[in-house]
Amino acid sequence: MSTGTQHTTGYFRGRTLAELGERLRADEIRSVDLVKAALTAIDALDGTLNAFVTVDRAGALRAAETADAELADGRDRGPLHGIPVAVKDIIDVAGLRTTMGSAHFADHVSTQDAECVTRLREAGAIIVGKTTTQEFAFGPTGDRAHNGASRNPHDSGRMTGGSSGGSGAAVAAGIVPLALGTDTGGSVRIPASLCGVAGFKPAFDAVPTGGVFPLSQTLDHVGVLAGSPADCRTGYRVLAGLRPMPRRDPGSEVRVGWIPPDLLHPTDPRVAELARTALDSDGLDVREIRPEGLDGMLRAFGAIQFSEAHAVHADRVAEAPQLFTDDVLDLLRQAGETAGWQYVRALTDRERWRAEVAALLDEVDLLAMPTTCVAAPEIDQRQVDIGGTPLPVRGSLIGLTRPWNLAGVPALSVPAGTVGGLPAGLQLVGAPGREDELFAVADGIGEALQRWRGGPRAATKDG
Amino acid sequence: MSTGTQHTTGYFRGRTLAELGERLRADEIRSVDLVKAALTAIDALDGTLNAFVTVDRAGALRAAETADAELADGRDRGPLHGIPVAVKDIIDVAGLRTTMGSAHFADHVSTQDAECVTRLREAGAIIVGKTTTQEFAFGPTGDRAHNGASRNPHDSGRMTGGSSGGSGAAVAAGIVPLALGTDTGGSVRIPASLCGVAGFKPAFDAVPTGGVFPLSQTLDHVGVLAGSPADCRTGYRVLAGLRPMPRRDPGSEVRVGWIPPDLLHPTDPRVAELARTALDSDGLDVREIRPEGLDGMLRAFGAIQFSEAHAVHADRVAEAPQLFTDDVLDLLRQAGETAGWQYVRALTDRERWRAEVAALLDEVDLLAMPTTCVAAPEIDQRQVDIGGTPLPVRGSLIGLTRPWNLAGVPALSVPAGTVGGLPAGLQLVGAPGREDELFAVADGIGEALQRWRGGPRAATKDG
Repeated sequence: MSTGTQHTTGYFRGRTLAELGERLRADEIRSVDLVKAALTAIDALDGTLNAFVTVDRAGALRAAETADAELADGRDRGPLHGIPVAVKDIIDVAGLRTTMGSAHFADHVSTQDAECVTRLREAGAIIVGKTTTQEFAFGPTGDRAHNGASRNPHDSGRMTGGSSGGSGAAVAAGIVPLALGTDTGGSVRIPASLCGVAGFKPAFDAVPTGGVFPLSQTLDHVGVLAGSPADCRTGYRVLAGLRPMPRRDPGSEVRVGWIPPDLLHPTDPRVAELARTALDSDGLDVREIRPEGLDGMLRAFGAIQFSEAHAVHADRVAEAPQLFTDDVLDLLRQAGETAGWQYVRALTDRERWRAEVAALLDEVDLLAMPTTCVAAPEIDQRQVDIGGTPLPVRGSLIGLTRPWNLAGVPALSVPAGTVGGLPAGLQLVGAPGREDELFAVADGIGEALQRWRGGPRAATKDG
Repeated sequence: MSTGTQHTTGYFRGRTLAELGERLRADEIRSVDLVKAALTAIDALDGTLNAFVTVDRAGALRAAETADAELADGRDRGPLHGIPVAVKDIIDVAGLRTTMGSAHFADHVSTQDAECVTRLREAGAIIVGKTTTQEFAFGPTGDRAHNGASRNPHDSGRMTGGSSGGSGAAVAAGIVPLALGTDTGGSVRIPASLCGVAGFKPAFDAVPTGGVFPLSQTLDHVGVLAGSPADCRTGYRVLAGLRPMPRRDPGSEVRVGWIPPDLLHPTDPRVAELARTALDSDGLDVREIRPEGLDGMLRAFGAIQFSEAHAVHADRVAEAPQLFTDDVLDLLRQAGETAGWQYVRALTDRERWRAEVAALLDEVDLLAMPTTCVAAPEIDQRQVDIGGTPLPVRGSLIGLTRPWNLAGVPALSVPAGTVGGLPAGLQLVGAPGREDELFAVADGIGEALQRWRGGPRAATKDG
């Protein structure tokens, strides 16, 4: 049992980007007020949550003043204008430290904005700070970083999940309404699931990765975390360079393929049931789908992620191993053992998996499964009990998310309720180019769950 | 000293495709006569040369009758119509054995033509047989194959070079005027150099590799061997699906960048001098070029070829190692040791090398160097003496050719004369899309050498 406690939440908890935008434009509030609300929440909560590595108070307030002046002048940059946003600390923001969560980069200051940050700024967003990341984004727990573990707002003795753990905590605690993350095997969706917020990993290459420190270059995706799928969509469209567009309704009947999660990884039955029940919604035609190429998918993900990650870090592992945290050094050393011929075969296995996923997404409109196999484990916990069997925490967190990095298809985690008082997500996977359908269905599910269960915080599956 | 001897040559020695085509169309000779000439030469010479694994007497004669009937009917398929051609035994020809030079495939019969063979047949070429290949095309010596070593027509105690050794011997001996080879690190150009014929490796992907057994899928190229660059060009245009076109003259002054071969690999100074002297020709402006990214190029070639080759053969190496020849098994086991992260870094190094070569080929029209570092070693010789230092034979054969597989640019070997009575080639490297310039310069050099030195067989650099 965790020893942590729940905490009061920040200003942005339960507030949508649409609502904030309306109030800004109705002159009921200014961007400077929003930034001050974010800073106040950081002061109140971040001593416990450790969601932030760096807070740019002065820079954020200055940018907010500019944003307010622009709005007053009639220059409106769209739905993120004046909105405080947090950025994961492996993404370059000019003039701020980018530590990668690592002692190797403890004093590293970025000189340029990453491309995704440039897009945020051009859309008027205000960068309030950099969020805690698992060291080099390598690992899904969120409790291995040079600046310490990020902590779950639902129970500060528990993991946020990772690697975008600080972003998950910051959004869940209402410190910011939107945060950037990166996702190589689930690093946006896992903290979304464990912290009870929405998290979206776009299609591969939909958002530029320039200025983002690589983990595994052919699996890395920049994504967003927010309070709802609708707000993820707003952030995503900015990052992808798409114009704002009103949300569309899903088609008359949406065909959803439920993948029994145990096919991918043993899953806490309460989490599986919570996610499956969330699909019992009008307008969804749910059928069971059993993918075939799972062995090849697993081999391919491992060989590709490990080879690419070790290629990034080989020199650091050889020359300064003592600067890594234990878990990440172990993973990197294991990663160096993958053979070149296994990587080459993995490229073929990946093509097969992509083809199979494309065929499944012809058969149904969306694939669905839980996001994680468990709700948030405790900080430093390295084994979880699933159905009486102790299993490594890493696979239990990334087991259901990594297939969609390998396939390069859009995937979204939406809160499905709670298990034992802790949030767990439903994951929806769609076809590239049909993101709007994914968001529309997810919004519908989120709203239905809120009506039915009285809101995500209250919904339970605590058998 | 080799104990072998020189042999009389077949009908096609010194005859061009243009001459054969004219005689066919003037009704002075029939395709059936050409096929019989090839079969007669095989009967006379192949007991010594071992250039062929399989000879398709009946099939070739039948196809020649059809070709003759078509020509008589006025159906003319172009410059290869009725011409006997030999095909390396890792390329599928329907109904014939494709052994890959290996005991693993000793009884393997192909059911379909490779795409390049289909193109040959549609152009009217007659497949007379399958030529000896180094086992699985892995190795440049030509003396490791299930059916035994192919032997050099200039001295049957010496290597043909490889892996397309049988094709080199068959063309050099005048058994066929044209033969298919494959080239992953030099396997067309090396036997061309050692056997005293022309050999062309096209740009990457210019000729389809469907139906060709892979060695290293991102380095494999299908190429041609013939008596002259002009005949290589004719064969290449058919394989690449390009229409026949008259040869063009090179531009007024061609800028040639001579790469001192010792930068790439220690080279017999007589071979280097022979190749350099061949460039002392009107219309060539020769300057020295010193590439910079050679360390990365070498690392990249090794990691890519080894990883991809082991990926093809891992199961055979694990399950039936005794069916490999010693050299190839050793290479494959060594290949399995390459790490995945080294392969990943190699992909980056390859991009850098490609960019550097592209920049060099902006500066000059062609790059030039010898094709091999030595003339033909003896069969089974595993070390060669270069400047008093014993060096492994493998690097001494592929050291100057492999950079152009990694770059994916067209490269041609043209006979430059002889050293100690044995042929050695000049290698010319051009930019993709400018192949005609490459062929025109090579033709000019070949013709000049023939005038000046009295033909490649007579030219010497026997210091």
